[in-house]
Amino acid sequence: MTSRSPNVSAQPPRRPSLPERAISRRLSALSTTTAVTTGAQAGTTQHDLTEEIEEIKRYEDFTTIDWVQDAAQEQLRRRARRKQNAGVYELRGSLGWRRRLEDTYDAGQAWIVVTLVGAAIGLNAGFLNIITEWLSDIKLGYCTTAFYLNENFCCWGDEKGCPEWHRWSSFWLLNYLLYLLFSTVFALASATLVKSFAPYAAGSGISEIKCIIAGFVMKGFLGFWTLLIKSICLPLAIASGLSVGKEGPSVHYAVCTGNVISRFFGKYKRNKAKTREILSACAAAGVAVAFGSPIGGVLFSLEEMSSYFPLKTMWRSYFCALVATAVLAAMNPFWTGQLVMFEVRYDRSWHFFEIIFFIFIGIFGGLYGAFVMKWNLRAQTFRKKYLTKYAILEATLLAAGTAVLCFPNMFLRIDMTESMEILFLECEAGRDYDGLCEAKNRWRMALSLAFATIMRTILVIISYGCKVPAGIFVPSMAVGASFGRMVGILVQALHEAFPHAKFFAACQPDVACITPGTYAFLGAAAALSGIMHITVSVVVIMFELTGALTYILPTMIVVGVTKAVSERFGRGGIADRMIWFNGFPFLDNKEEHTFGVPVSQVMTSEVTSLPSSGLTLRAVEQLMAQNKYQGFPVVEDGSSKILIGYIGRTELRYAIDRSKKESFVSSNARCFFTQPPASAAQTPSVRAPPVTFDAIEDASGQQSVDFSRFIDPVPLAVHPRLPLETVMELFKKMGPRVILVEYRGRLAGLVTVKDCLKYQFKVEAQETSTHDPALEIRQEKLWSLMNHAADWLADKVLSISGGRIKLGGGRASISLESRAEDPRDQFTPILASPGRDILDGTEDVDQGVELQSRR
Amino acid sequence: MTSRSPNVSAQPPRRPSLPERAISRRLSALSTTTAVTTGAQAGTTQHDLTEEIEEIKRYEDFTTIDWVQDAAQEQLRRRARRKQNAGVYELRGSLGWRRRLEDTYDAGQAWIVVTLVGAAIGLNAGFLNIITEWLSDIKLGYCTTAFYLNENFCCWGDEKGCPEWHRWSSFWLLNYLLYLLFSTVFALASATLVKSFAPYAAGSGISEIKCIIAGFVMKGFLGFWTLLIKSICLPLAIASGLSVGKEGPSVHYAVCTGNVISRFFGKYKRNKAKTREILSACAAAGVAVAFGSPIGGVLFSLEEMSSYFPLKTMWRSYFCALVATAVLAAMNPFWTGQLVMFEVRYDRSWHFFEIIFFIFIGIFGGLYGAFVMKWNLRAQTFRKKYLTKYAILEATLLAAGTAVLCFPNMFLRIDMTESMEILFLECEAGRDYDGLCEAKNRWRMALSLAFATIMRTILVIISYGCKVPAGIFVPSMAVGASFGRMVGILVQALHEAFPHAKFFAACQPDVACITPGTYAFLGAAAALSGIMHITVSVVVIMFELTGALTYILPTMIVVGVTKAVSERFGRGGIADRMIWFNGFPFLDNKEEHTFGVPVSQVMTSEVTSLPSSGLTLRAVEQLMAQNKYQGFPVVEDGSSKILIGYIGRTELRYAIDRSKKESFVSSNARCFFTQPPASAAQTPSVRAPPVTFDAIEDASGQQSVDFSRFIDPVPLAVHPRLPLETVMELFKKMGPRVILVEYRGRLAGLVTVKDCLKYQFKVEAQETSTHDPALEIRQEKLWSLMNHAADWLADKVLSISGGRIKLGGGRASISLESRAEDPRDQFTPILASPGRDILDGTEDVDQGVELQSRR
Repeated sequence: MTSRSPNVSAQPPRRPSLPERAISRRLSALSTTTAVTTGAQAGTTQHDLTEEIEEIKRYEDFTTIDWVQDAAQEQLRRRARRKQNAGVYELRGSLGWRRRLEDTYDAGQAWIVVTLVGAAIGLNAGFLNIITEWLSDIKLGYCTTAFYLNENFCCWGDEKGCPEWHRWSSFWLLNYLLYLLFSTVFALASATLVKSFAPYAAGSGISEIKCIIAGFVMKGFLGFWTLLIKSICLPLAIASGLSVGKEGPSVHYAVCTGNVISRFFGKYKRNKAKTREILSACAAAGVAVAFGSPIGGVLFSLEEMSSYFPLKTMWRSYFCALVATAVLAAMNPFWTGQLVMFEVRYDRSWHFFEIIFFIFIGIFGGLYGAFVMKWNLRAQTFRKKYLTKYAILEATLLAAGTAVLCFPNMFLRIDMTESMEILFLECEAGRDYDGLCEAKNRWRMALSLAFATIMRTILVIISYGCKVPAGIFVPSMAVGASFGRMVGILVQALHEAFPHAKFFAACQPDVACITPGTYAFLGAAAALSGIMHITVSVVVIMFELTGALTYILPTMIVVGVTKAVSERFGRGGIADRMIWFNGFPFLDNKEEHTFGVPVSQVMTSEVTSLPSSGLTLRAVEQLMAQNKYQGFPVVEDGSSKILIGYIGRTELRYAIDRSKKESFVSSNARCFFTQPPASAAQTPSVRAPPVTFDAIEDASGQQSVDFSRFIDPVPLAVHPRLPLETVMELFKKMGPRVILVEYRGRLAGLVTVKDCLKYQFKVEAQETSTHDPALEIRQEKLWSLMNHAADWLADKVLSISGGRIKLGGGRASISLESRAEDPRDQFTPILASPGRDILDGTEDVDQGVELQSRR
Repeated sequence: MTSRSPNVSAQPPRRPSLPERAISRRLSALSTTTAVTTGAQAGTTQHDLTEEIEEIKRYEDFTTIDWVQDAAQEQLRRRARRKQNAGVYELRGSLGWRRRLEDTYDAGQAWIVVTLVGAAIGLNAGFLNIITEWLSDIKLGYCTTAFYLNENFCCWGDEKGCPEWHRWSSFWLLNYLLYLLFSTVFALASATLVKSFAPYAAGSGISEIKCIIAGFVMKGFLGFWTLLIKSICLPLAIASGLSVGKEGPSVHYAVCTGNVISRFFGKYKRNKAKTREILSACAAAGVAVAFGSPIGGVLFSLEEMSSYFPLKTMWRSYFCALVATAVLAAMNPFWTGQLVMFEVRYDRSWHFFEIIFFIFIGIFGGLYGAFVMKWNLRAQTFRKKYLTKYAILEATLLAAGTAVLCFPNMFLRIDMTESMEILFLECEAGRDYDGLCEAKNRWRMALSLAFATIMRTILVIISYGCKVPAGIFVPSMAVGASFGRMVGILVQALHEAFPHAKFFAACQPDVACITPGTYAFLGAAAALSGIMHITVSVVVIMFELTGALTYILPTMIVVGVTKAVSERFGRGGIADRMIWFNGFPFLDNKEEHTFGVPVSQVMTSEVTSLPSSGLTLRAVEQLMAQNKYQGFPVVEDGSSKILIGYIGRTELRYAIDRSKKESFVSSNARCFFTQPPASAAQTPSVRAPPVTFDAIEDASGQQSVDFSRFIDPVPLAVHPRLPLETVMELFKKMGPRVILVEYRGRLAGLVTVKDCLKYQFKVEAQETSTHDPALEIRQEKLWSLMNHAADWLADKVLSISGGRIKLGGGRASISLESRAEDPRDQFTPILASPGRDILDGTEDVDQGVELQSRR
């Protein structure tokens, strides 16, 4: 409808508030009264109302989302439309037809959007795959036929390379140095682009998207620039060889795509609750294209991303993932007809005695997750405290370091996906990688895998969170796969050492009994489940990755054990931990809280409320200027505090400005917030009670403004003694922005999600204090050590180069000036300090980074 | 804790009400006040409270479930326990250890229960599989080595039968008659057992379980007798050759198992909300063992069974399904190492041009679902109206008729699972069933399959709903498979007729291009999705059934198309339609309603409320005797109607009886419902306002009873102008039993789920009237036709047998006496008549069928 102005978010979103609530409530009231009117009339009313909603939205383009009211509004719009049509279908000729067409378009908009978004995600994923492959290969050499072909495409059909594919040089050291150089340059480019154009494109983005889907607004995070930069920098980051994956970023760019495209459609511009459906669907499509696992994507969106996942959203996600995967399959980026880079088939089945090893792998998964999360959070704390200013340098050095460290190990040297493919293989297939399957290499391989496991774990810990697009799925799976393969090799050795032991009785003689490849497969599942704390999605993803139907029970056992172990360490997967770490206002529906306090202990009891009549316009404006509350409860009068309704800040602002503009009311005009039947001051009618002299004077001697149309007469209100848990349930399940506390009709207080979270953090801080001064000292020491090392290096470079290359000074001077560009860093308090702040969308989070307005 | 008395449900559940609400609220209040007391004290208080809850529960053993309060109560119990422990861990020696052990047991109870339940379900499923196989084979012959072996086990290793397996006779007609006889006897036995011992064991049970999981209580439905009879009758029903499946009943017996086992554990006896988690998990396990598809089961439970599915429940379901499947796998009932009866591997991939045929199959699925639902509902109406009294006869005749009709067709003759296995096969495998793969038989096969499709569809329509355990999953899949295979064969013929057409350009020459087996596979998925209106679960189930990883995209496309077509016909799958048909009080969360009315239009405004003081005990008892309301709002006094709280009927009953028993109060005693601070009439304290003479007289001259401890001081209350949609959302998401309507502190009305549903039905009836008098006349005609046929047959038999066999008279005389045994039939109104009744658990649904008390 209003696709002419897609740039809805140009204005700085300083104070998000509640513009739609009252409108929709009023819509409800109106539709009740007009329920008996004819269709055409209802249609007109509806039209006016829609325009007014648009008007208010444009007025202050930024709103925090109230799901309940958004949904109710959409329903009413549809209902009015249906009524309207009841009249229209009587009409003859072209008008009726056009209406019907419009109607079909309106109903089908969702499917159009989902199809477009899915196709865009699939296309993007296909291109990213091709570019990533090419960038990874260009580090080693180039195609003489056409420089833009990767090795596979250049030598299509040949398994072992071809003359057209040219290595950079025949001297291995030069090749290695070029490899190192490319890696470093890629990381540098990626980090620089991110820092300069879209700081939000750094990291995985899953935590933030979780919060956004739950209703928090983080402006620019899903904007066009983020999409563009993330799509460009992701292949660079992966090709740089950093231990980062593409799955988290896939979800991010998919959700960006959904956000950008859906804004061109009226339905989604109007309604944030609808947009949320699309975002959930996009998250599903993101995982679907990253793993080639459409159903796994839907389940991931359900299990991890969405706090509220009705069946309709599931169906949309299903469709979006299907379209995206189909487009990707049609593009066929690997020219193999496969959606994923590896597909394994296991011909052999498993034996019941192996369950003991599966359990062991499961335990590893849980421990891996807990370990990585603990240390990664510490690394993040360190990064936030000391490294924010050196984001580009950090990423570049990490890439260089990774390249140097990983080269000696055969499993770390190659791409993570490739290494998983190798590790998953059954040995019979005839394909062998560097003697992995040969019995004589067994101990060497086991050691090499152990080293790879440890090394990769450390790299994951320090790499995840650096300022390039970086996911943690694939690196974790790679760690798990190398560990699993190691276990598999050891079990195989055990079996061959004691082939006639009772334990191995189930093995048939002269047939390979243990398949180490399946252990690698299970290890990958365990590590993925351990880091993300997801279960069903992991099983389905692994299943769709490999088609290992026979192994569904072992996979479930391993993931189950991992989940059980993970739960001992509690507090959710890495995404939830990052939410908690960053202080995003997110009510986790995985956690169950038992506070045992009534809501009255948590609510704000000093509420600035508006009396329903008596205030002058000037006083109202002063009140608004004095504070930044997002809305005001309206009470009968200041002393009785009988609750009448609630008015959002935006609507009040709009109402005041409009009345000033349209009717030229003076600042002395009295404001009325009640409905005419209750306060008959303005227009005495026959039904009204006898009018007092004062009221007549009010109405005649002075101007008055009627704001009653703008209040929400039925805000969600609860009893002060209602348990806090129930109130939190209300927030989680119903999704209001604010809940009023009312005692016998009187306003007693007001509670927001932030109030609940504050209390929760207070309780948690009392129970477990993770604030560790020793840790801070150690981090301080590490930082000074790093500084010394840097200075020493700079000195050395300076002296070796004879004063021509100067590293340290420049760095220091730049670093002091450069601001922390990632807006997420600015407001982040130190980890778990008691009384820490929680964002609620009112902060100036976008100071200086108004990305969307650049479009 | 109280596992000594597992027979909790012996008492007739006439008036379900709300016994726990106020208790838990009080718990909340208490825990707030005791928050500063020491751990030991809190523990004692907690102990007393727990005992009191038990007491009330025992008092009237039947409660309708209030999820919110149940959950809150459990949380508080845990909190109190934790506090208690804070003190206990100081204790030395054995006492402390025992406490800790108890504690671990308490925490681990859920896992113990889920493991036990899962194992029991797996075992049961294994035995059922074995028995079903044996019963199916005994129709054809017997094993001479041991009569209890089926053909497969008798001739283990031989593909083509063996001499040990003996056919009943060498004369085919005798064999056929024996086959017919066995089928009829099995059906007769199944129907008789169901009718005599557990009427609830009839049908699939999925609709009812949906309602139970959503909070409706249907006593005996999940009892031990239902479990036993369903487990016995299911193999009989399937072996009888009726077009019924075992999947729906599997869910039912699984959920029964969960209910029966969990009742032995204190945690689940106390808390219905917890039990719901177990029931959801059991539903998952039921599907998991029926299909050998653990993840599919979890998703089915999520998508179809549960209106509320938090992640914790998903995790429990996962575990339960895993255990059940693992036990089943360990039992290995088919001796093939496979979980399912068929597992297919497709070596060939699909081509993009085939999508057009896939879409065609998808459309078929949608149409099939809509068609079967429409006609099955009509058949059910007919059955309810005329056949209720002849349930056994009906099932027996159906089995005989099915056996007669299906014998001539090669696809209908064999077991449905077996026929699917054959239809799914790729033709290359070397295995061929009766020339299905041969090109020369093509047209004969296509015709045969078309006949099978039509025949099976008709049989499904008339068989589903007859009074034996009967699912609709597998029959639907069988229909879809035969249709799909037919399409596949036709496409293959088309390709072979025009091998060089542009359309088939993607086909490689000299290689089989079309795999009809995959069409059968997709057809099965389409039909299953069409009848149940589920998407993701179907894809995963099909996937786990066959491991056809390559076909995930086609499956998704087919199911997507089916879903889209199904949505045109609306109103959910067959389970939802049966709920609607039976008038169960179920707020469907798939449907979105737009009523545009405030809750005040729907609420009961004539509420019988109790004044907080002044009523004599006798008056209260009279009030309770006069009506059957499940609870009463408590107001300050009759005129002001200031809302103070809510008291459930059960609690009031308990409170009155207890006060009579303990303190021997007279019937003239005054009842007080307010908290002491508000009404200081009983114990004048220094803080109380000046006591009036009346109050002193009240307190001294007369006895008074304080019921304030039993009221729920913070019932969920809303504004009268809140839109109905929001109230329905509250019911769906928060799950209270009743919502009060309060205007400025005053009670304005009361609304229940039933009120909402009544309004919804009224609106629906106005919009679409499905009440069709012509249909009724036609049904009447059919019935008289059937009567005539029966009379004619009876006459014939009488005359042929020379008066020795008398059919009609006996039937008529029995039929007049025999009551409708299935309690679901008694209260079911005629389909969709306006103003139809909705059950709300207060009905005497169990009149005469107190199954659990027999245990």
